[in-house]
Amino acid sequence: MQPLDLAQQTAMLLPAAEHIFADLRRVSSDGEGVTREAFGARESAAQEVIARFARGEGLRVERDRAANLVVSLPGDEGDGPFIAVGSHLDSVPCGGNYDGAAGVVAALLALALLARNAITPPRPVRLLALRGEESAWFGKSWIGSHALLGLLSSTDLAQRRIDSGRTLTEHLRDVGADVDAIVAREPLMRRDAMAAFLEVHIEQGPVLEARDVPLGIVTSIHGNLRHRRIRCTGESAHAGATPRSLRRDAVVAVSDFIVRLDARWSEWLAAGRQITVTHGMIGTDPHEHAISRVAGSVDSSLEIRAEDEKNLLAFHELALGEAAPVAALRGVSFTFDEPIVNLPATMDPAWVSRLDSLCGEERIASIRMPSGAGHDAAVFAHAGIPTAMLFIRNQFGSHNPREAMQLADFGLALRVLVRALFGAGA
Amino acid sequence: MQPLDLAQQTAMLLPAAEHIFADLRRVSSDGEGVTREAFGARESAAQEVIARFARGEGLRVERDRAANLVVSLPGDEGDGPFIAVGSHLDSVPCGGNYDGAAGVVAALLALALLARNAITPPRPVRLLALRGEESAWFGKSWIGSHALLGLLSSTDLAQRRIDSGRTLTEHLRDVGADVDAIVAREPLMRRDAMAAFLEVHIEQGPVLEARDVPLGIVTSIHGNLRHRRIRCTGESAHAGATPRSLRRDAVVAVSDFIVRLDARWSEWLAAGRQITVTHGMIGTDPHEHAISRVAGSVDSSLEIRAEDEKNLLAFHELALGEAAPVAALRGVSFTFDEPIVNLPATMDPAWVSRLDSLCGEERIASIRMPSGAGHDAAVFAHAGIPTAMLFIRNQFGSHNPREAMQLADFGLALRVLVRALFGAGA
Repeated sequence: MQPLDLAQQTAMLLPAAEHIFADLRRVSSDGEGVTREAFGARESAAQEVIARFARGEGLRVERDRAANLVVSLPGDEGDGPFIAVGSHLDSVPCGGNYDGAAGVVAALLALALLARNAITPPRPVRLLALRGEESAWFGKSWIGSHALLGLLSSTDLAQRRIDSGRTLTEHLRDVGADVDAIVAREPLMRRDAMAAFLEVHIEQGPVLEARDVPLGIVTSIHGNLRHRRIRCTGESAHAGATPRSLRRDAVVAVSDFIVRLDARWSEWLAAGRQITVTHGMIGTDPHEHAISRVAGSVDSSLEIRAEDEKNLLAFHELALGEAAPVAALRGVSFTFDEPIVNLPATMDPAWVSRLDSLCGEERIASIRMPSGAGHDAAVFAHAGIPTAMLFIRNQFGSHNPREAMQLADFGLALRVLVRALFGAGA
Repeated sequence: MQPLDLAQQTAMLLPAAEHIFADLRRVSSDGEGVTREAFGARESAAQEVIARFARGEGLRVERDRAANLVVSLPGDEGDGPFIAVGSHLDSVPCGGNYDGAAGVVAALLALALLARNAITPPRPVRLLALRGEESAWFGKSWIGSHALLGLLSSTDLAQRRIDSGRTLTEHLRDVGADVDAIVAREPLMRRDAMAAFLEVHIEQGPVLEARDVPLGIVTSIHGNLRHRRIRCTGESAHAGATPRSLRRDAVVAVSDFIVRLDARWSEWLAAGRQITVTHGMIGTDPHEHAISRVAGSVDSSLEIRAEDEKNLLAFHELALGEAAPVAALRGVSFTFDEPIVNLPATMDPAWVSRLDSLCGEERIASIRMPSGAGHDAAVFAHAGIPTAMLFIRNQFGSHNPREAMQLADFGLALRVLVRALFGAGA
């Protein structure tokens, strides 16, 4: 296939892409954005949209033992290491339509293009549409890839989904996963069966848009450390009758803690130490709080991300340390739940170079960049599988209903992906 | 009746008090504390506990047109100005058993004592067990007294109860209040019919306990100014992919605002300007927030209380002003709802002196003190009705399940109250 043919052929697939994205939005709309709950009905509905298109193209459709969707070329006998290509189908609550889904649709159309042209790639290719990538549902991220590698702990499996209140184990059973094997931490695939993992994903920040470049080649994925719940406990008291000196006000204490961490973050950036710090959730107890009552407790979350493992762990230590003077000054205590830690991951240098060259050959502008967001790709990379990611420019960020990838940019990623699969035997 | 008889007689009523408080707790227990929702089932159940005891003592039981409970002596023909004595029966969610109820039970037992001794006081006496005192339910405080005086605005009436989501008008109708008259802002009583309003109430702070004095005679009631909801709007964004400089983080912004106001409050106290500042409620949107998402909005409440009207309004101005630099610095906006303002109230000097003298005559230690908490008494005082309050020492504050008034202290207040009613024709 010549470069010119490829550009034409990928462009011809864009109406199909548009149609699939519309279908995905339709089955998972929540009125404002899309909500595809991990291991839930709307994630399964999104799988079915992909499966239906795949069957229409004559592709083979299966579920693996973690209930992820797997699509392969007809005639693929499954012998020899394969290239896995894909992303996830769940979304955050009230999220956008492209985070995750763009990579699945790119992989699907790449397979369709190979099938339509009766091309047998040098290595078998498998689309992997993973479940449960977003931490919003169970606190735990990348559940689909963790399950495949036998990495889910009993703590992970006992986490309850934020909307249903039911455990991950129960939800895994609902969608037909092999719960016994997962509980036994049995790997559901052989690591050496996967020759590489390639993931196309929208960029979730503003870098490509700001730089006016359609594609990014990811060099590394930042690690993160999360406390799902930090409980600050003071003492509830009557607002009018309790003087400032006698208060143990959890709202003021948590505010103080957050402002102090923000100041430390600013100092670290000024000193060239890259991290991000986010308190995404905060709340007094809705069953107890009142305008005229000093709040006796506040729950909040904390997430730290860093490209460098040392910075990640050092800022965490600093955060724990910063709570102590606040507790002393404000008469409260802070209880941190067990942190969930995901270390930074490096993308495979050979694959990074290959994607770089392919962009050059296709005359598509790209830059190399780290990923601040975490991805299933990091899980496979940590397992020793050569891994690479391609970012697509995207407007208005992600994890919100306004995310707005352009189809033309998607088409460029599809072109590079097909070239990568075609030459992946090298 | 001699002073010695009175001490004996009030002591003999304490087992009845204990029984009534136990009944009140039983009908309004929420498992942890008590919850008597304003204009709701458990507030009505508490009224019924009082009414049942009153009937057993041969007292007259009625409801006024605001559905407050009214109890009077047999033979009281209702002519001539009366002394109203009472407090409220609602509680905050998960509150304590004595806030409000102690004053109602004191008034009930004072009437019972008069009836048992066939004493006709110089002026008619009416127990007034008011509804809807706590702001926790509708944002609006002191609804029962406001309704009686024709002071509920259409805005007040449209407020929705925090648990049911239904309007105050609907809840007033549920309990049989004269909604048409209330909506028309028609006073449900003549102001000159009430010669005085006396309220016994637990002290809601730690002053009496710290000073080792059982009773407090209130000189003034602090005013307050409340914003039920301040919305801080930023922009939700992916936590990993959005650098600090591009964030518009509502959680950090609100924290900054709260810490700034706390610093200003500390400065004011150091400068001798008395206020209290409380952010009793704060929260990200539970339908949207996530560990890995920068929060796009946060709601919080603000309450300012002051003995001095100038300080109350000046700190409010300062709070509005403090939001501006935070908004500019953090890239957010603050929207303040319409403030609910209750100006400070002065207790009647003649009544304050009388209570002071009675405590002296009964050899009961007492101090004069302002009330940091608001009370229905302030509403009657603002209407020009001579008003007084007696505080009972109380442990562990109020608006929480642990409040713990001692019955012996309650007995002292009962003694002073009976003396006050007995001599109230003077």
